[in-house]
Amino acid sequence: MSITSAHESDPAFALHRGGKLEVRSTVPVRNADDLALAYTPGVARVCSAIAETPALADTYTWISNVVAVVSDGTAVLGLGDIGPVAAMPVMEGKALLFKEFGGVDAVPICLACTGVDELVETVVRLAPSFGGINLEDISAPRCFEVERQLRERLDIPVFHDDQHGTAIVVLAALRNAARLTGRSLGDLRAVVAGAGASGVAVSRILLEAGIGDIAVADSKGMIYSGREGLNPVKEALARDTNRAKHTGSTEDALAGADVFVGLSGSTVAERAVAAMADGAIVFALSNPTPEVEPAVAARHAAVVATGRSDFPNQINNVLAFPGVFRGALDVRATTITENMKVAAADALAGVVGDDLSADYVIPSPFDERVAPAVTAAVAAQARADGVARA
Amino acid sequence: MSITSAHESDPAFALHRGGKLEVRSTVPVRNADDLALAYTPGVARVCSAIAETPALADTYTWISNVVAVVSDGTAVLGLGDIGPVAAMPVMEGKALLFKEFGGVDAVPICLACTGVDELVETVVRLAPSFGGINLEDISAPRCFEVERQLRERLDIPVFHDDQHGTAIVVLAALRNAARLTGRSLGDLRAVVAGAGASGVAVSRILLEAGIGDIAVADSKGMIYSGREGLNPVKEALARDTNRAKHTGSTEDALAGADVFVGLSGSTVAERAVAAMADGAIVFALSNPTPEVEPAVAARHAAVVATGRSDFPNQINNVLAFPGVFRGALDVRATTITENMKVAAADALAGVVGDDLSADYVIPSPFDERVAPAVTAAVAAQARADGVARA
Repeated sequence: MSITSAHESDPAFALHRGGKLEVRSTVPVRNADDLALAYTPGVARVCSAIAETPALADTYTWISNVVAVVSDGTAVLGLGDIGPVAAMPVMEGKALLFKEFGGVDAVPICLACTGVDELVETVVRLAPSFGGINLEDISAPRCFEVERQLRERLDIPVFHDDQHGTAIVVLAALRNAARLTGRSLGDLRAVVAGAGASGVAVSRILLEAGIGDIAVADSKGMIYSGREGLNPVKEALARDTNRAKHTGSTEDALAGADVFVGLSGSTVAERAVAAMADGAIVFALSNPTPEVEPAVAARHAAVVATGRSDFPNQINNVLAFPGVFRGALDVRATTITENMKVAAADALAGVVGDDLSADYVIPSPFDERVAPAVTAAVAAQARADGVARA
Repeated sequence: MSITSAHESDPAFALHRGGKLEVRSTVPVRNADDLALAYTPGVARVCSAIAETPALADTYTWISNVVAVVSDGTAVLGLGDIGPVAAMPVMEGKALLFKEFGGVDAVPICLACTGVDELVETVVRLAPSFGGINLEDISAPRCFEVERQLRERLDIPVFHDDQHGTAIVVLAALRNAARLTGRSLGDLRAVVAGAGASGVAVSRILLEAGIGDIAVADSKGMIYSGREGLNPVKEALARDTNRAKHTGSTEDALAGADVFVGLSGSTVAERAVAAMADGAIVFALSNPTPEVEPAVAARHAAVVATGRSDFPNQINNVLAFPGVFRGALDVRATTITENMKVAAADALAGVVGDDLSADYVIPSPFDERVAPAVTAAVAAQARADGVARA
């Protein structure tokens, strides 16, 4: 069909032809003897043993190495609500990154429902087949409630990557940027533009990590306690943030601020960046268009990061989620605690080590030290937090 | 742990260590350029195209090659209701057979719910991620209603293998057994022991294929119209079968019968087989213990088949389901029609050809002609039935 041939001139379409994943056997099936072990009658002995001692499923099935990448297709990249089928290429991509970077088998599951109760109930029913649940591209504020309920009902890790993956990488980069500019996190006042999934989670992890102060903006401006029409998630955030009581725009709040984290797709004028404190740290993370051009930001800021691979300091979730799940699965963690996320960020920051510079506050996604460092930190923290089963 | 080391002396456990499946990338991710095509930003162009033209998902995602192997763990092999986690080794095994024999990617999904409505609703929500649904090891009579509702609500193939896989292979073997003994299906009077998933489906496909008469027994004896306490599925079966109005046991009904199909785990005495018609055909398919020892049956029957690999004529579902789904997926069939099942059986019977003998009425699972023959027949029949989309 002609629409297909037109696409073929775009290398992204050529690469996607036939999809990006396959399921393979890890055991041989060459003859009747192999079949009698991998399938009937041999498999019946394994099933019976697991029925008697369920923990044996960790050893004799693939469950403990498989993560479901679950989406309802409502907030896909910057494309918005494109539905479950059109979301599949992203979820396949996520699954292949899980395998390539973390050795985690991942199955993309795009669901034909969007209600919180339906999403939760469906994932709970699927859960026996998986060692963990990675939620992906579910729009805010539903994503918060979906994750909260699933964390409560399931005893396997549930992790909304748009929230926590981003939060971990931002915290790692910010730790290094603070170190580079001779400050501690407690010295910093930050402004976060965006109160969707990633904005809320970044704000929460920065609070957890002891940031000096933080103020968050949504599309209507700064969020403050008592602002009309806030949803419960923003209302709670308002209580814990914005000690300076900014009520105007992001640009107003940036005056004198040390850190800007853009997660909103909005734009920030050069003069607002210029009005930030000395040694400003600018993370303009919207894709494909950063909130402020990196070259422009660099005229005024000590450190600039983006979400793009063609500029220094790429804030890329692939730095976090493969190692987070690898570590959690390795110890059969029952959940992913706040401590485990912070430990992941610290490990990620640590990979940079003595090579720290303004253009290198976060490692490359292809740095082979990253996943092992995150894995080890997450597994150790799971043990320390008492949530490890193995 | 000691329970694990004890299992390690059993080669089935050694083989199952770590599970039997993995998910792999089919595209390279070696550097930032690869990542920019397989993931952001390149993937966004593919998602947008699919959002605009949903049929492009067939070309640019793995959906059209992936089947969900769905079970609730209520009727696993001969083990009964062992639950979703203990069922996983069977579903992994099924998935690997899909890939090895049909090139179909299959994902095992073991669900933590058993109600008909919950099962149906859950699979409907999952369906956008898959090109077909293979139901597995769901107990009767729920399995009939689950399949019926899913076939009605989904426009992708839904196939309960315990029913239809078995039915296809039995019909294929019976066609060849009839040919060997110089009779047509219309000449044959059959007795089926078992009115669960496979017993019902075998009876239905034999009726569809024009068998002379058929009588079905459950654990209480022969099923006949008006027998008290029949569920709706058995009641419907009673109306369409048992023209001779047998009301006693399977063994009683076998007197003078041409065909016995055992799918019940019960036993049939030698004298009952001896009382069958000349040139009797005995398919004693229960595993691991056939309804009658093959050597005993062979004293009286012209053709004997079992479900076991260590006797001639193994009735093994792997002869059917990989090719059935391969053929259906190849033409993007919206459903699997009765005609497609009969076509699969005819193609499977045809592989035996001129080599037909009493010990060879059905090909070996490792005969490489089987899957292509079934695939081609199913795809052609889907086109003929007007259910092919590609």
